Amino acid sequence: MAAALLLLVVLAAAALAVVEGKLNVHLVPHSHDDVGWLKTVDQYYVGSNTTIQGACVMNTLDSVVDALARDPARKFVVVEQAFFQRWWAEKSPTIQAIVHKLVDSGQLEFINGGWCMHDEAAVHYIDMIDQTTLGHRMIKKQFNKTPRAGWQIDPFGHSAVQAYLLGAELGFESVHFARIDYQDRAKRKADKGLEVIWRGSRTFGSSSQIFTNAFPVHYSPPDGFDFEVLDDIIPVQDDMSLFDYNVEERVNDFVAAAIAQVNVTRTNHIMWTMGDDFNYQYAESWFRNMDTLIKHVNKDGRVHALYSTPSIYTDAKHASNESWPVKYDDYFPYADSTNAYWTGYFTSRPTFKRYVRVYSGYYLAARQIEFLVGRSSLGLFTSSLEDAMGIAQHHDAVSGTAKQHTTDDYSKRLALGASKVENGVSTALTCLTSSNRTCVSSTTKFEQCPLLNISYCPSTEKASSATKSLVVVVYNPLGWERSDFIRVPVNDENLAVKNSDGTIVESQLVEVDNVTSNLRKFYVKAYLGITSDKAPKYWLVFQASVPPMGWNSYYISKSTGAAHNGRGYASAVVSPSNDTIEVGPGPLKMSFSSASGQLKRMFNSVSGVDLPIQQSFLWYRSSEGDSMDSQASGAYIFRPDGNTPTIVSSSVSLKVIRGPLVDEVHQQFSSWVYQITRLYKNKEHAEVEYTIGPIPVDDDIGKEVITRMTANMVTNSTFYTDSNGRDFLKRVNLGLYIADGKYELSVLVDRAVGASSIQDGQLEIMLHRRLLKDDARGVGEPLDEVVCVGKDCEGLTARGTYYVNVEKIGHGAHWRRTYGQQVYSPFLLAFTHEEETKWKSYSIPKASMMDANYSLPNNVAIVTLQNLDDGTTLLRLAHLFQAAEDPQYSVLAKVDLRKVFGKRTIKELTETNLSANQKKSEMKKLNWKVVGETENGPTPVKGGPVDSQALVIELGPMEIRTFLLKF
Amino acid sequence: MAAALLLLVVLAAAALAVVEGKLNVHLVPHSHDDVGWLKTVDQYYVGSNTTIQGACVMNTLDSVVDALARDPARKFVVVEQAFFQRWWAEKSPTIQAIVHKLVDSGQLEFINGGWCMHDEAAVHYIDMIDQTTLGHRMIKKQFNKTPRAGWQIDPFGHSAVQAYLLGAELGFESVHFARIDYQDRAKRKADKGLEVIWRGSRTFGSSSQIFTNAFPVHYSPPDGFDFEVLDDIIPVQDDMSLFDYNVEERVNDFVAAAIAQVNVTRTNHIMWTMGDDFNYQYAESWFRNMDTLIKHVNKDGRVHALYSTPSIYTDAKHASNESWPVKYDDYFPYADSTNAYWTGYFTSRPTFKRYVRVYSGYYLAARQIEFLVGRSSLGLFTSSLEDAMGIAQHHDAVSGTAKQHTTDDYSKRLALGASKVENGVSTALTCLTSSNRTCVSSTTKFEQCPLLNISYCPSTEKASSATKSLVVVVYNPLGWERSDFIRVPVNDENLAVKNSDGTIVESQLVEVDNVTSNLRKFYVKAYLGITSDKAPKYWLVFQASVPPMGWNSYYISKSTGAAHNGRGYASAVVSPSNDTIEVGPGPLKMSFSSASGQLKRMFNSVSGVDLPIQQSFLWYRSSEGDSMDSQASGAYIFRPDGNTPTIVSSSVSLKVIRGPLVDEVHQQFSSWVYQITRLYKNKEHAEVEYTIGPIPVDDDIGKEVITRMTANMVTNSTFYTDSNGRDFLKRVNLGLYIADGKYELSVLVDRAVGASSIQDGQLEIMLHRRLLKDDARGVGEPLDEVVCVGKDCEGLTARGTYYVNVEKIGHGAHWRRTYGQQVYSPFLLAFTHEEETKWKSYSIPKASMMDANYSLPNNVAIVTLQNLDDGTTLLRLAHLFQAAEDPQYSVLAKVDLRKVFGKRTIKELTETNLSANQKKSEMKKLNWKVVGETENGPTPVKGGPVDSQALVIELGPMEIRTFLLKF
Repeated sequence: MAAALLLLVVLAAAALAVVEGKLNVHLVPHSHDDVGWLKTVDQYYVGSNTTIQGACVMNTLDSVVDALARDPARKFVVVEQAFFQRWWAEKSPTIQAIVHKLVDSGQLEFINGGWCMHDEAAVHYIDMIDQTTLGHRMIKKQFNKTPRAGWQIDPFGHSAVQAYLLGAELGFESVHFARIDYQDRAKRKADKGLEVIWRGSRTFGSSSQIFTNAFPVHYSPPDGFDFEVLDDIIPVQDDMSLFDYNVEERVNDFVAAAIAQVNVTRTNHIMWTMGDDFNYQYAESWFRNMDTLIKHVNKDGRVHALYSTPSIYTDAKHASNESWPVKYDDYFPYADSTNAYWTGYFTSRPTFKRYVRVYSGYYLAARQIEFLVGRSSLGLFTSSLEDAMGIAQHHDAVSGTAKQHTTDDYSKRLALGASKVENGVSTALTCLTSSNRTCVSSTTKFEQCPLLNISYCPSTEKASSATKSLVVVVYNPLGWERSDFIRVPVNDENLAVKNSDGTIVESQLVEVDNVTSNLRKFYVKAYLGITSDKAPKYWLVFQASVPPMGWNSYYISKSTGAAHNGRGYASAVVSPSNDTIEVGPGPLKMSFSSASGQLKRMFNSVSGVDLPIQQSFLWYRSSEGDSMDSQASGAYIFRPDGNTPTIVSSSVSLKVIRGPLVDEVHQQFSSWVYQITRLYKNKEHAEVEYTIGPIPVDDDIGKEVITRMTANMVTNSTFYTDSNGRDFLKRVNLGLYIADGKYELSVLVDRAVGASSIQDGQLEIMLHRRLLKDDARGVGEPLDEVVCVGKDCEGLTARGTYYVNVEKIGHGAHWRRTYGQQVYSPFLLAFTHEEETKWKSYSIPKASMMDANYSLPNNVAIVTLQNLDDGTTLLRLAHLFQAAEDPQYSVLAKVDLRKVFGKRTIKELTETNLSANQKKSEMKKLNWKVVGETENGPTPVKGGPVDSQALVIELGPMEIRTFLLKF
Repeated sequence: MAAALLLLVVLAAAALAVVEGKLNVHLVPHSHDDVGWLKTVDQYYVGSNTTIQGACVMNTLDSVVDALARDPARKFVVVEQAFFQRWWAEKSPTIQAIVHKLVDSGQLEFINGGWCMHDEAAVHYIDMIDQTTLGHRMIKKQFNKTPRAGWQIDPFGHSAVQAYLLGAELGFESVHFARIDYQDRAKRKADKGLEVIWRGSRTFGSSSQIFTNAFPVHYSPPDGFDFEVLDDIIPVQDDMSLFDYNVEERVNDFVAAAIAQVNVTRTNHIMWTMGDDFNYQYAESWFRNMDTLIKHVNKDGRVHALYSTPSIYTDAKHASNESWPVKYDDYFPYADSTNAYWTGYFTSRPTFKRYVRVYSGYYLAARQIEFLVGRSSLGLFTSSLEDAMGIAQHHDAVSGTAKQHTTDDYSKRLALGASKVENGVSTALTCLTSSNRTCVSSTTKFEQCPLLNISYCPSTEKASSATKSLVVVVYNPLGWERSDFIRVPVNDENLAVKNSDGTIVESQLVEVDNVTSNLRKFYVKAYLGITSDKAPKYWLVFQASVPPMGWNSYYISKSTGAAHNGRGYASAVVSPSNDTIEVGPGPLKMSFSSASGQLKRMFNSVSGVDLPIQQSFLWYRSSEGDSMDSQASGAYIFRPDGNTPTIVSSSVSLKVIRGPLVDEVHQQFSSWVYQITRLYKNKEHAEVEYTIGPIPVDDDIGKEVITRMTANMVTNSTFYTDSNGRDFLKRVNLGLYIADGKYELSVLVDRAVGASSIQDGQLEIMLHRRLLKDDARGVGEPLDEVVCVGKDCEGLTARGTYYVNVEKIGHGAHWRRTYGQQVYSPFLLAFTHEEETKWKSYSIPKASMMDANYSLPNNVAIVTLQNLDDGTTLLRLAHLFQAAEDPQYSVLAKVDLRKVFGKRTIKELTETNLSANQKKSEMKKLNWKVVGETENGPTPVKGGPVDSQALVIELGPMEIRTFLLKF
């Protein structure tokens, strides 16, 4: 009897396999579970706050497991690990054993498998890799499985980096998504081009391609085939003894929907995404109806229905031997109708975007420090940020499209996680800088200052102790020696800065401006609850020089008078004397009009580039919809009311401060737009710090604020961002530039922003948005960020920095690539107070992880160095240049690992895929036929195998290589 | 390891038991599943039509079984068998085995256990018994379980019959419900009198009492403890690693709610009804949260929480040794606020109420016929009505409070079921009347005429064949010989009626009135889709005499002229000649004013009773709510706009028809109110047939139509219904009467209606309602019934009959009880056409089941005689009189079963409880202490044990005895 039953089960399962010669409808049961959106991630998980949304992921996972266990033919795909891992940790061994069986049998398949389904526009690629690795390694550890399919069904457009890096390089065979431009979709449906071979990387071409499935409608099932509990469903009723028997009707509807879809699809395999947002609240409702449908559809015989997954679907597609269209570049921007370009979110919530970016770089540095301090009692302290950072990459998190309370939750998670990591870093620095490697020092206690950008840093503000110096330990996360300027707020005007060898370092005092002091007062109260009466008087500026992946120490103390001439370090405020003021103590000069206060010109004395350029702030009036189309501008969508933005001010109050290290140009564009341009002694770029807000809305007009640079260049409205796009408004993660026959004008940003080049020679960057309407894409709130101290609320002020460089044509890449690394990975500063001699007696003030005199080549960065919980160390090296981007640097690079790790000995090295869940050598790669292509293109330059003795890693342009090391 | 695990499970279960000395909170997980209401029963079952209501009973049962199987501490009560049995029939042996275990262990307990949760106002007690027996016997058969608790949580008030008959006599130890009058509830909360010992029967007193639990609020959980999936729930979040941990807060809320409830409850046991309408769509959502609550509440320790059931709760109450208040009578009417008396539904949908009642009586008769024909190839053909009849008793079905489409579904089910039973009855009558017991006769094919009341009967309409007679087989379901008048529509005016022995029977022709002809035309088209051009001309009236539980045959054929004088049988239309017209060919005379057309007087020549009495039709204007209270009159609630109804007409057109058998008084009160009063030759009551409708609403006024009888009696506004009520407006199932010192004025009705006696000597009966507003109790539709032929729609016309009798004081009961049986169980008529001699050659024209000359005593009726599917026969005998109701009949009665069953031999007889799921001898009875009572009252007269040889059944007043017989 048992044997007979088993046989039946096997037959039932076999009956579900693909049938040749028939239209196969692959039913892919899934639930799309946003890692926070209308509710917080934990509220979604436990199912609270249901007045906002009836959604509980525990219900989904609990009930799916029951439903799968009930029938071995059923399948389900699990996507977001942020939810699955919360659930898994709570489950009993009994349930875990059941899940193991379901995973082993393929009934439950992990796809995508990252911590979240990350955004693809506003998220940094290192964060994409991190959050994916976090999920993938947990799946590997718990189930010994490697996800085979990308499942980016909801993100609002798709990036080339997603295709080749977070796709092919992960070992994914396919990627699937719903959202592409509505016109593009229409065309692709007509051409049967929704499914393509996507070659996201121009550098790698077909060697990093992926089968890509853009859905014909959305990620929900065809109309009438939703079976979510309590939804408006039409159950398949096949019990003839009850009324409303409807099998024929439902089968006919099924066949009709399948035929409609196959008419826009190549091969006789189509996918139905059986699920939607937070579905399977009671999975049996879906499976019961799908079971019945499959049974009767297959009995009917016109088409064949089966439970499937993206992997099975992709296998079937591959087996068909069909030729596919090829797709290059990316799927940005995304519009779902005429006036509905989802480009607003490239800038929405700019301060949250910055918050995420800051901790992205910090996290990278902290992990290095964790590695440096070794596996000790400190444990893996950086892991306290992994959940928060993973969640923050979600396509409603860093995108700025979550509700305010959810965004607050994301920030809270980052703050809590970061605070633990900061403690860990402080302790670790104590160990590292202690000559006897004592991790707990009674005297040394490092502080860090996350609010340095608004001049809040208690450690430095009280710097002027009689006996103790302020010790600044400066950590450099980059692989090469680096000199950058440090600015700390101080109250004493008689301070001297000394290097770790005791030599005086040139410094400069700059008065803290009122805008910053006011920001400091309001936000320190709002965010920390601290009333700080007295703002610091000065910024103390000095240049620090730090070895690669190492640190240096600087001592700041009362100047003794003998050493230097007191106020000589202070800056001078210059009164304009003629029409044009030229500033810049170093190679880069900028000229401003003393009449209008506006930028006129940039001149680089090294390269000889001399570019007339203007800069101004403007705002687009947010559309509230009009008689033709009710579409408003909102968190997702940027829709200006008219194409011509309003200028904030054409006459600007100007203040110029000069000094030996830095010249500053302060421009007050209006009561709510302030800008400081800084030119440093030996830098070839300008640093532009803007402070925007509170954006006034007492005129009931939403405003979208841009900075616009207008250079005298003929650029054919073409501009380049770090993702190679060229359309109306594009997102920028790291940098953008325009070029004409002579020059390249480059900008690097400190967070993701929207940007465009509409007129020749113009660059527009959207810096801040304050809107009064919702754009009807679900979030249900206008993007009107306010900050309160008690009942005193005001619109959010955004402060940020961008960096401008002008070079001769062909020479911009080097600055963008290398200085881009510095922007992403600033110095990590730690402060303590100690007697200088005492400190010197027990500390190692300066060190590098690497061999003396070794540093990484200029075209390579370490993007990950992380101790894993299994005792191995994860190393990722990235070549920074694209093929042909730079004559000198777009070449094969070599990294000598033995020198990188100095005294540490590498016992074992294994190269893996990008997410380190499988050996590189075991990655499978499907070959696909491409329409009109008979042979492969040129082979890209890539590094060769690693000799386990020599341990020299080669990297071709754009190559990222991932290794697991044992020391 | 396995042993250790088992031990843990046992401990966990033990931890849930009641804790002495603590406040025990009994959590009773339940779902209230209406057997049709906003959706049809099958729609609720499969979960379709979710735009109306998100409810799917499959979800509930599937997910509850999963949830119970997951943890042996969890419990759930299953109530409505109409749903459970649909589900059970579809389940695999695997699932059935799991359910068996859950039932055996007590995790899943059946309570109430009938087919539905029947209404208690508009439903007939035989239907209550039938639907309960149906469910109980299935539970017994499948699980060997007998439900211990009544669970009438939703019906709109509670009847005394429910307490003692459908409670104590079923073997229930307790009954639980939510709805009692709001003022009563307030008082009972103050007195801790929500829980009582209810003695519903004055006749039986404490010998048929039941522990009764009226809930303090509703059948939902205390506020904040709803855990239904996707509801606005507050999950218990006890994972400290997530945000929003809330255990302390939730435990505090729990304790506070428990203390609030125990303050209005005797003993330290309180019940929380953990569920609501169609809840547990995903049971895990409830159990997951309850598990956590129980864990943390018990850890907290202030109160003790446990999974429980009404049985466990009742055991705990009983064990407490507390004294309880006693309650007599019933819980009617139910009001939930000042202007919200739920008395409208006593009359809502009067034609559906009639439809149910007709098939109630028919079903009883059909089962007798099924028994008579024996277990043959016909099978249990009456079972095709059991599901439909069981469903129709639901408290939103016969109550008239379901949506129109659901009501149509109930009617359709009845029609389909009845049509099968009618076929069975026709075939069975062929067998029974065939002298060689041939069930399939080539010639005899019986037809029945369910639309006889509107003169539609194809068999009789074509009666005048030259060679063949119309053979009318008349079946008498009562236990005594009976003579009643039969009326069939015919077209021929020269017809003779002959008895089965060939003798001519007196007959009379009465012209079919226009109102009936028009009804016939419209409704035959509307309901049967048949266009019948020609209405029959006459009613042919004759008196049939039929032996007990047997039949007689009558032959109708062309009169030969010799036998009688042609048109002499026709009726004469009388023109009024003086002021008063007295009518009545028999002992009862009625006088009408020829001026006003109104009734003036009733006179019974036998008893000498002479009563001045008037009768008129009036209507209450339905309230649409007013400035003080927005409550409208609706399907549930009767709220008149003002207390004074409007008279339909005070001057009435009158037509009097006389004949030898019957005098008819036709009164046209208005274009939409027509009435025929019939007085028969040898009957002491008047038969009043009203035809009301379409009620005009073109004045935008809803109308509630009553008939009012005003007798010259001093009755202190007291009136009596068949459930002993005495309040503003009471429901009537069978009869009502008023009495003064001299006379009793009694009325019997053909369906449940609302009635009242507001002024002395007045009786008001609400006959029809047509409303334009919804009363906001959920149904969401105004009670505005319309009937359509194509697009030609009109308000529903209701036709019905009531019977009026006036007797000397103390003598009304006999007529009410015995004629009441005749009203409920009319003759069953079957028609065929055959040559008289041929028919006589092969037929048994007249027979009785009983021994010749035996009949049941006048005070006993057979309320059930039914072949069961296990080979046994179910017999229920009912004593018809209450104690002291009638000097002659309120005494111990005896039934000689050997004579009742004539030639059949009873091999085995087992007395059972009312629902025949347990032996009478094994019924358990709990003793309860009653406040202020030291000893039991007088012992009621009851029948003694049955001697298995003598087989004489004794029945005391009101006693119903149930037996399983084997022949």
